[in-house]
Amino acid sequence: MFRPNQQNIIQPIGTIHTPFTEAAGTPIQSSAANGAEGTIELLAEFEPGLKSLEGFDRIWLIYWFHRASEPQLMVQPYLDTSEHGIFATRSPARPNKIGISAVRLLGIEGKRLRVADVDMLDGTPLLDIKPYVPAFDHFPTTRVGWFQSKSAAGAVADARFEQKK
Amino acid sequence: MFRPNQQNIIQPIGTIHTPFTEAAGTPIQSSAANGAEGTIELLAEFEPGLKSLEGFDRIWLIYWFHRASEPQLMVQPYLDTSEHGIFATRSPARPNKIGISAVRLLGIEGKRLRVADVDMLDGTPLLDIKPYVPAFDHFPTTRVGWFQSKSAAGAVADARFEQKK
Repeated sequence: MFRPNQQNIIQPIGTIHTPFTEAAGTPIQSSAANGAEGTIELLAEFEPGLKSLEGFDRIWLIYWFHRASEPQLMVQPYLDTSEHGIFATRSPARPNKIGISAVRLLGIEGKRLRVADVDMLDGTPLLDIKPYVPAFDHFPTTRVGWFQSKSAAGAVADARFEQKK
Repeated sequence: MFRPNQQNIIQPIGTIHTPFTEAAGTPIQSSAANGAEGTIELLAEFEPGLKSLEGFDRIWLIYWFHRASEPQLMVQPYLDTSEHGIFATRSPARPNKIGISAVRLLGIEGKRLRVADVDMLDGTPLLDIKPYVPAFDHFPTTRVGWFQSKSAAGAVADARFEQKK
């Protein structure tokens, strides 16, 4: 357990609303989301932290996979028929269920943000927002392991990593 | 406080070791780190989760800014002389002190990873590792807000966001 003092406790800063109410059919990545739109309701106390964000095309959302199943160290990801270590995949069934998605920022009205390319479930707890900056986030990369020759275009999830009800 | 059950508690999966023992002089981004090398010591229980990771050039490290100061909603970031909302910056003094850095993977030996382009302090608690996949992480982006015309090349931090001792 993470050291339980005020310094080291995570707390949602808001909630992400999306059209996706169950894992099955949810885009597996923002790059596969075909522009699906969502809204973020930030808690009012954090609204001042949005200043200057409107100048960015795209933002990172850091969030909690609140409906993911128990962590698994070996998973068969959506895009492959072989098993891989959880850290070599973007699967939600992680030891710390933290997801990152770069979504398109459509607009900000007060503490509400409209975004596109959402790939998370409706009601997802938001932990952080960061500006997407190509100078920080683009790296020349040639080796992409088992993703080589895979395409996520249009790929959607199924229930394999969803918490059973 | 985040709902305190086993589902929603974060816990370090390991520790990041870097040459940087204080904020002053630490690269402000992995893209500004000039290849600085570090090592990750994963907790032994998580080692199986590394399977297939060796095929990737670059990996995301998701970690906790354990030595950042109390959260501030308005900050003057390293690269600017104006104040911006915390969510429009990559400053560590965030409501949830979660950092993301894409580092170069040099090698894996058991539960130890050698990485380059590190930009975090020595002893940083690691929360997650994800493969860096250009198809998921590169987006065409034209508007980068206040970063426009700024360069992080060679930029290093100072003590402004460091917890006072």
